[in-house]
Amino acid sequence: MQTLKVKKDSVVKSVAGAIAGECRKEGECEIIAIGPAAVNQAVKAIATARGFAVQDGYDFTAIPTFTEVEVENEKKSAIKFSVKKI
Amino acid sequence: MQTLKVKKDSVVKSVAGAIAGECRKEGECEIIAIGPAAVNQAVKAIATARGFAVQDGYDFTAIPTFTEVEVENEKKSAIKFSVKKI
Repeated sequence: MQTLKVKKDSVVKSVAGAIAGECRKEGECEIIAIGPAAVNQAVKAIATARGFAVQDGYDFTAIPTFTEVEVENEKKSAIKFSVKKI
Repeated sequence: MQTLKVKKDSVVKSVAGAIAGECRKEGECEIIAIGPAAVNQAVKAIATARGFAVQDGYDFTAIPTFTEVEVENEKKSAIKFSVKKI
């Protein structure tokens, strides 16, 4: 499964396109975001991707989980969204 | 359906308890958050509520949508999460 990393300066429409494309192909993807601004971009991207998906006759659910990721040898807490086509 | 408003200074555990309680009772609830910090608190609350729910043998999905809310006669864009027990 594809894991998309979203940053605070990620472009919402680009991430949304990646989510929609991945879910169309594979049925699901994961999104990792560290920090409030990145989490916000991720949520906006999921909401935007739903707009793309509706045109193709499907929708997404997103399930958020706490996780840890290693960035430059440092453990950081992050949010992982499991996005699934429905 | 109950609509919970989450602010940037909302206490994650309290919101999580409200989500879990509402979904246990009604099967679903809505969460409204304005701004990145509030959206982040909402996502953390959903992730925390899942921890509570797992103990009772169920889980949640969350579907984010863009919406508009009126705050002091001013329209603000917000994120609405439709949270459903599964």
